[in-house]
Amino acid sequence: MIPVVCLVGKSGVGKTVVVEKLVVELKRLGYRVATIKHDVHGFEIDQPGKDSWRHAQAGADCVVISSPQKLALIKKVDHDPSLGELALAIGPDYDIVVAEGFKGSQGLKIEVHRKGMGELLCSPQELLALATDEALDMDVPQYSLDDGVGLAELLREKLLDRERDKATLFINLEPVPLKLSIQEFLMGGLLGMVSALKKVGDVARLDLFFRR
Amino acid sequence: MIPVVCLVGKSGVGKTVVVEKLVVELKRLGYRVATIKHDVHGFEIDQPGKDSWRHAQAGADCVVISSPQKLALIKKVDHDPSLGELALAIGPDYDIVVAEGFKGSQGLKIEVHRKGMGELLCSPQELLALATDEALDMDVPQYSLDDGVGLAELLREKLLDRERDKATLFINLEPVPLKLSIQEFLMGGLLGMVSALKKVGDVARLDLFFRR
Repeated sequence: MIPVVCLVGKSGVGKTVVVEKLVVELKRLGYRVATIKHDVHGFEIDQPGKDSWRHAQAGADCVVISSPQKLALIKKVDHDPSLGELALAIGPDYDIVVAEGFKGSQGLKIEVHRKGMGELLCSPQELLALATDEALDMDVPQYSLDDGVGLAELLREKLLDRERDKATLFINLEPVPLKLSIQEFLMGGLLGMVSALKKVGDVARLDLFFRR
Repeated sequence: MIPVVCLVGKSGVGKTVVVEKLVVELKRLGYRVATIKHDVHGFEIDQPGKDSWRHAQAGADCVVISSPQKLALIKKVDHDPSLGELALAIGPDYDIVVAEGFKGSQGLKIEVHRKGMGELLCSPQELLALATDEALDMDVPQYSLDDGVGLAELLREKLLDRERDKATLFINLEPVPLKLSIQEFLMGGLLGMVSALKKVGDVARLDLFFRR
């Protein structure tokens, strides 16, 4: 799966500025970057009167606007999508996803903190790093609020230099780890295939052979 | 693959009005509808100053805005996406895609025509139907410009009542037909699997068996 890192922090602490600095440096390092903004209040994005806006007003559940430079896709959803669902929607064409918000998720987190804003949202164990304007007495790597270079280097070392999974599987919109012995894989794969055949009941033994 | 129908016609003929009427009726029939607007000139959709707009300005290649009601995804592309690529981006959660434009595509087409606008863009062989304000002497089903009910019924009969494919495969972003004998499928599947093993060269014969 694409590495996902969440920039979390209290409202007004300046998360978007840190995302901006981080994205600039990740792009400078040559990575393909996707970002996610979590908007609890809902949002309007298309412009009233435009053809695509009229499609949505007529009741379309998903509206796409396509051009040679940019593609936009706006879909109605019936629940707040999880980070896994969003990573699936983003697809495999990116090296990293930087999400703003999602403090309740299981993802890797960097917390943005400012003096006088009280306690942190996350425990040290949850945090990959802190972006902060004061040194805090805890065992977590700490960066200044404008140190996009440092944060990007940290992500490069911890997430991006690692070998990427060659394939990603989602079942029911959630990622599934792909670890299985080759024997289990061949057995499971064949049992799945033959179970689609008519008149196949319980499989106690299977023999398959062919010549080419 | 999801059925895709393209509403084509000359600029200014009123394609969007026909799309609106068609979407309203398809929704009334209970279908999940996606639409596509082709915008040759490029477009701006996000609002300057918003956090997601700032992510894009910082250089993000893909920006997602997520809320409990709506999800928006805006990605940079390096070419004009084909209808197949757009259907892949839309995903499997819809019954039909109604596209505005794409007159050069291979998809099913309905042409929108008005008196005094000259010749049609498409030949009769390319057209599933015409939406027109004058009767034309050709062997294509013709509907008035406000007959969303008739057009939706036509699509129901021709596309939506048919049995849907249970699975869809895209290779290199283009849909691939899934028709293969079970023998070919088992052979091809196993050859693909074992070719990933170390020390497997040319496979002239294969025997596999197990007990459970």
